[in-house]
Order: sequence, then structure tokens, then C-alpha cells
Amino acid sequence: MSIKSAIDALTAQLGDKISTSQADLTLHGQNETYFPNTPPDAVAYPASTEDVCTIVKTCADHSCPITPVGAASSLEGQHLATAGGVSLDFRDMNQVLEVSPEDLNCVVQAGVTRKGLNQYIRNTGLFFPVDPGADASMGGMAATRASGTTAVRYGTMRENILALEAVLADGTVIRTGSAARKASNGYDLTHLLIGSEGTLGIITKLTLKLHGLPEATTAATCRFETVDDAVNCVIATIQCGIPMARIELLDHMMVRGFNKYSDAGLPEVPHLFLEFHGSPAAVEDQRTAFSEIAHEYGASGWKTADTTEDRTALWAMRHDAHYASAALGNGKHIWPTDVCVPISKLAEAVGQAQRDAEKLGLTATIVGHVGDGNFHAGLSVDPNDPAEMKRAEQFTGDLCKTALRLGGTVSGEHGIGLGKQRYMQAEHGDALTPMRAIKAALDPKNILNPDKMLPPTNEK
Amino acid sequence: MSIKSAIDALTAQLGDKISTSQADLTLHGQNETYFPNTPPDAVAYPASTEDVCTIVKTCADHSCPITPVGAASSLEGQHLATAGGVSLDFRDMNQVLEVSPEDLNCVVQAGVTRKGLNQYIRNTGLFFPVDPGADASMGGMAATRASGTTAVRYGTMRENILALEAVLADGTVIRTGSAARKASNGYDLTHLLIGSEGTLGIITKLTLKLHGLPEATTAATCRFETVDDAVNCVIATIQCGIPMARIELLDHMMVRGFNKYSDAGLPEVPHLFLEFHGSPAAVEDQRTAFSEIAHEYGASGWKTADTTEDRTALWAMRHDAHYASAALGNGKHIWPTDVCVPISKLAEAVGQAQRDAEKLGLTATIVGHVGDGNFHAGLSVDPNDPAEMKRAEQFTGDLCKTALRLGGTVSGEHGIGLGKQRYMQAEHGDALTPMRAIKAALDPKNILNPDKMLPPTNEK
Repeated sequence: MSIKSAIDALTAQLGDKISTSQADLTLHGQNETYFPNTPPDAVAYPASTEDVCTIVKTCADHSCPITPVGAASSLEGQHLATAGGVSLDFRDMNQVLEVSPEDLNCVVQAGVTRKGLNQYIRNTGLFFPVDPGADASMGGMAATRASGTTAVRYGTMRENILALEAVLADGTVIRTGSAARKASNGYDLTHLLIGSEGTLGIITKLTLKLHGLPEATTAATCRFETVDDAVNCVIATIQCGIPMARIELLDHMMVRGFNKYSDAGLPEVPHLFLEFHGSPAAVEDQRTAFSEIAHEYGASGWKTADTTEDRTALWAMRHDAHYASAALGNGKHIWPTDVCVPISKLAEAVGQAQRDAEKLGLTATIVGHVGDGNFHAGLSVDPNDPAEMKRAEQFTGDLCKTALRLGGTVSGEHGIGLGKQRYMQAEHGDALTPMRAIKAALDPKNILNPDKMLPPTNEK
Repeated sequence: MSIKSAIDALTAQLGDKISTSQADLTLHGQNETYFPNTPPDAVAYPASTEDVCTIVKTCADHSCPITPVGAASSLEGQHLATAGGVSLDFRDMNQVLEVSPEDLNCVVQAGVTRKGLNQYIRNTGLFFPVDPGADASMGGMAATRASGTTAVRYGTMRENILALEAVLADGTVIRTGSAARKASNGYDLTHLLIGSEGTLGIITKLTLKLHGLPEATTAATCRFETVDDAVNCVIATIQCGIPMARIELLDHMMVRGFNKYSDAGLPEVPHLFLEFHGSPAAVEDQRTAFSEIAHEYGASGWKTADTTEDRTALWAMRHDAHYASAALGNGKHIWPTDVCVPISKLAEAVGQAQRDAEKLGLTATIVGHVGDGNFHAGLSVDPNDPAEMKRAEQFTGDLCKTALRLGGTVSGEHGIGLGKQRYMQAEHGDALTPMRAIKAALDPKNILNPDKMLPPTNEK
């Protein structure tokens, strides 16, 4: 009953689907943010749900931890095998199994990435809208309840998954949900698994909603004198019910980062990056309605990106925010933060974050999916500078407190993982008890992504 | 440790908030469908979350069953105290606590009804869209994951609840979710409670999404020669992405019921009842696009209801489907059924249901929220005629099998309660095991709405 005996048993059963090569272990120990590298003891590359069952059953027999990994783009350390054991990598489970244009859905294996899926269905007139920036895997996006730039219009993973197949901690395969668009048929295990970060079950297959490609798409950017003006423009836009497809805030520091990383040549003041979807007439209506509101808040410097190339360039720049922040910090690591507040509190929260960063002497870029009240401050940190790390921790704690004070949450879309556990008590209070009870009921040996999400019981 | 000792203790603590009058017990034992009347041993009328805590703690101490009741309009017996004990009636918890137009949300106690809420916020320009027909309570609608006629556009309770307050089986009060529009912050207890039928916790307070009242609203009806034509028209409409606010099917038997009950004077052929929401231009666009599709399927007899009065009359008639079905059955009880299938399978499912009813000699009306693939067959039954009840059971079983065969679910919106437990194994298979584990973890004494949703463990 040990990690070693589990790996020996797995190797005997699965042969070269199990790797203990140094390169594989090192690769799977890495992360893009500030967590220490923590290599697993082995990496498993299942090719099927049956392989996942075999791995889970064997690990259960030997009480060996299992950490599922998709594209390894999680930002709170969810994919790090901090307890050792097996990293279960979905690289080889990347098949689109079924596309049903008539029902606007598809079935994919958990390792399919969002770009891979959209490439696969490019000729159907449909697309999968959830876009967290990284080319993440569908299993990982489900497990972290991912969202991103288009959630304001199309919803998050929470709204775009109809059904799941998952392997439970004892190796049982379950199916939750169905291809029906709605149901009142028992406990909502689909939504319990979405956002559970691999701690309750390992997602192997997903039935996803697809959406019709908009007939017309226009992107635009504009700038504001102050971040308050930009944010108040967003608040008014959402309150007026304009169905924005994307509405992204960049503060002056973020713009400075883009100028440094992408040579963007933008005036270093707050910007909004926008996208409108619909019929040509609807897009024009939305753009007009938005620009009237923006005008009231002093927007200027309008630029439109009507061609696919221009739009792609615009959103590629936006999606490089993490690297642009790193460039601004002269290559330091980025400590990403992620809070979400009711939209009426957005200006207050963003302003507080900017003042806090300045007070603590931290280089921070702010970027956000502000139509949902969700934003990120990216802090430049040197993990080898304990004083700076402490200031970043202080900033994150203060930001989380601000979000909770304003009726929001400590994580809009990055999840809890390792980084946000210390705020779970403040956010959930007594609701942590049923969460722990569910974890204990479904994973009594605590082998599924241990150390993640739920804080240790001796920690308040 | 008995029901009697629990009621004595509750009476000592809560005085006249506990009733054991025959009138109260009889009233709370009733249901609108075919289940035997089952009065509770007492009825509690809490006035606050604290009262609910007191009731639950006391009942837990005495292992006394608790059955939450809202408007008692559930259709699968969810509100019936089949194990005796206390009916917990939310009649006196009917306050709208907060309305935030700027964040498009509100906070209500669980006993607020949908009509009560919409009346309360009528001057805000906002409305709560979920409309199951009955003037159900928000707590009950959440607990049964209700939906209804507008879900095709605005979603079900699943999509319209941001946060909940609930009392757990040991009397702990928890808060799940927040006013933030999205979150990735731990297990999704909000969605676990939505649709749990009071078996995991008792919902006391809800934070609900509100929507802007559409600038323009138009309703219309049209008829088709065959139910296949009507359903195929719906399928094409949804596939084209027309954002229908309501799209309801009535088969010829249902129309006959409306003629008998409401003197509707409609030709007795399949009809669609429609509603369009948006700007005046958008409504006109939608109506034109829809009528082009409908024309292809031979629609005729167009009638438009542009005024509020005409629309109200139209939807009042539609909402009386249950009573119209009863009228058609000469006052017999109605055994309501409720399945949901992927929309491409809708014509097949409806046709099968009609043939099955005819084969079994049952009077059945079909009505459905067909934009979601959800429909109901209302069977006229005499609970004192065992042969007829057996045929109704056969019909329901066959319909559930059809729905599962076509990739759908045995309940689109009525829930499981007492009536659908026998299909849980067929629908969920091994996923029943984690459902049972969650129930055991959160309600170890099985006092929260016992006998509901999960089938007895000795039953497969």
C-alpha cells in the first residue's frame, strides 16, 4: 500500500501508458504562476475511460494520490501533484466523439481542447464559446468551472455542459445529465462535478452545448480618461441589457504591458476591448447603443476590427495578458488574482485594488471580464524574494476581503486549488461543513487530487 | 424520540406557529394529481429562518420527519408528508427582502410566489421570468428545479438562482453562492440544492436573477394539420436560433379540453402558442422569421395577441391545461407525465406518446414546452379504478422508456417525488450510488422529506 506499489501495479497493467521518465515528471511538476514545482511520481496517459478506471481502481487499492491534468494551464495549482502519486494526463483522450448540429451539442473526450474542438466543428456553422484564453482542455475547463471573455454573453462552463461521464474514487463510471436541454431528475451531479477540481471524480467525457456562429461579428476598442469612467460605462451597458459578446477592461498598467510585449502602441490609459455578435442589423444596433453610453463617459480613440484577421490579432493580444504582465515585470513570475463582485460594486473594487497595489509597492496589471463583474490583478513577483511574496499575499488577502465585503466571491473563474484555500472559511462559513461531508462521502480515501480546494481541517 | 414528542416540544417552543387542527392536517394532505391524501401529524408555520432552525433542530433531536411545503402545487407528490411528522409551510415567510435593479437581482424568502414577486417589482422595469403555470413559491420552484413556458428563452430555476440560504438536517444555516454573476469557489452547493426536493436541506432564502421587461411583446397562435408538422416547425425554429420567448405545443386533444373548459372555440387540430420578446424591430424580425418557417410546415389560422389583455387571456388559458384536461376527462383526476428529449427526437417522442395512449384506451392531452424538447401527456384517471390506474402506469413507464431511448430524461420539470422513483435506476444507473452517499452524508437520520426522490435501496 504505497505510491511505489501502485506505480508498479499500473506499469504491469498499462505498460508504456505509465511513465516515470525524468522529463515527464519535471514537465508535470511545472506551473505558470508562483507555486513551487512539484513533480509527481509517475505520469499516466490513459487512452480510454477503461484505462482511467484501471488507474483509479489500482490507485484506490494502494491509496495512491491521483492528480488529473489537462493542458496544465490552471492558475491556482490545481494540476500540481503536491501529494505525489500519479499525474493522470488526458493528452491521448482527445477525440471529438459526436457532433449533433440538429441538437446543437457535441460529445468530446476530456482531453479535447477548446481550439481543437472549434477547429473540428468549423464547417458546421456552430462553435463552442467558452474562452478562458489558454487553449485549455474541456475536462480541465469543466473541473475548474472556467469562463473567460465570452461568458458575459454565452455563460461559463456551468451553463454550457449538458452531461458528463466521470470515474469516481472507487473506479465506478457514472453518467450525469443527458442530451435533454433541461431536467428535474435527481441530484445535480453534473453541476457538483463542474468546478470540483478533480476532487470528487475524474471527468472523462463531456456533452457540450454548441452555439450558432453569429452572422456578423465586430470588435472595437476605445479608451477612457479614468478607470472609473471605463467601469461605469460597463455597468451602464450591462444594466441597459446590451447583449455584449465581449467587454474587457484593461487598466493603464495592462496597456503598458501590451505596449512592451506586443508593441501595441496604445495610449497608456484605461481601455475597453469589445465584441458584438448578431445579425448585421443587430450588431449595428448594439454598437450604436454602446457608443452612445460610452460617449457619456468620455470614450475616445475608437478603433474597429471588422476583419477576421484584425479581430484575431486583437484577441490574441488580449489573451497574452499573462505574458504581457510578465514582460512589464521584467520577466518576474506573475501572481494572478481573480475576484468577482456584483457589477454595481465593480468600480469600487477595481479602484481599491489599484490603490492597494500602489500602497504595497507592487507592479500590478488589471484586466477583467468586467461585464460579469470579474477582474484580475496580475502581480509581478520574485518567488525568491520573501518580502515581495508576502506583499503579494497581503494584496490578495485584501482583495479577497474587498470582494467578500462587496457581496462577491474570492474566485470568479480561476478556482481554489492551492492558492485560495485560505479564503474558503471566510467565503463559505458553515457551508464548508457539507462540502467536507460530500468529499468524505465520495472520496473516503482522499486519493482524488488531495490537498486541493478544501483547506486542511485544522486551518480556519 | 417520536413524532409525538417532537410536536410537543415544538408546540412548547413555537406556540401557535404549530398547528394540529384537523383542517390544517387535511389541507396539507391533499394534492392535485393521483396520489392518496396523506395528512401530516402537524403543520409548522415558521416566520423566520430562526424558526426553521428551531423546527429542524427539534425534529432532528426526535428523529421526526419534516416535509417542506410552498404552494403545494408540486405534481409528483413532493409536498406530501408520506412518513408523517411535520409539514413545514412557508406561508408566513413571504417577504421580498431586497431588490437591486442595478445588479438585476433580488433576495426573497422562500414563501414568496412568482406572481407575488412580479407584482412587487412591477415598477422597476424588471421581471422574474420562470413561469411553471401555478403561482408556485420560489422555495418550491427551486427545490423542484421548476421551469415552464419561458425556459426556452430565460432558462429554468437552475439558471436563475444566484445564491441560497438553507437549513441543513442538523439545523445549521448555510449560505451558498453570492450576488456575483459567476464563481469558481468550491463545490456548487447552490445547484446541489436546486432540484433536491427538500431532501438535502430546506431552502429559506433565495437570491434571484431579474431580467429587463421586454420593450415589446407579441403573442400569437397558429395551427397545423398534424402534430408532426407542428413539432418539426418547432425543431426548425430552434435550430435557426430564433430567440422564442415561448413556444408551446397543444395537440388536438388538449385543444378539445380548452374548448370544453374555456369555451375557446379553436379548431381541434394541433396548435402552437407563441410569444416574442425584444425591441419592436426585433419582435417583428422574429415574427417574420418564424412565420416563414411555419409556412413551410403548413401553418394556418394565425391569430395575434398584441394587447396585454389578449396575451393574459391566452396564457391564462394555456396555464389552465391541468383543469382543461380534467374537464375533458369529465372531472377525473389527472395523472400528469413529464419527459424531455433532445429536440431532434421530439416528433418521434410525441407521436409515440399519442399512439401509446390510443393503444391503451386512455384519454390523454399533450401540451409541451417544446422549444426545450419537454412535453406532458395528461391522462384522465379514476384512482378508484385499478385497471385504469394500471394502464396509466403502463403508459408512463413506456413514455419514460421512450425518453431514455431517445437520449432524454424521465422528468423535464416536475421532478421525481413519489411518482418517478421507479425510473431512477434506469435513468441514472451507477450514478444513484453517489446520490445516496450524498443524502446519507447530509441527512444521516433521513428526516428531510423522507420517501422522496431516491428509490428504496431494496428496489432496483
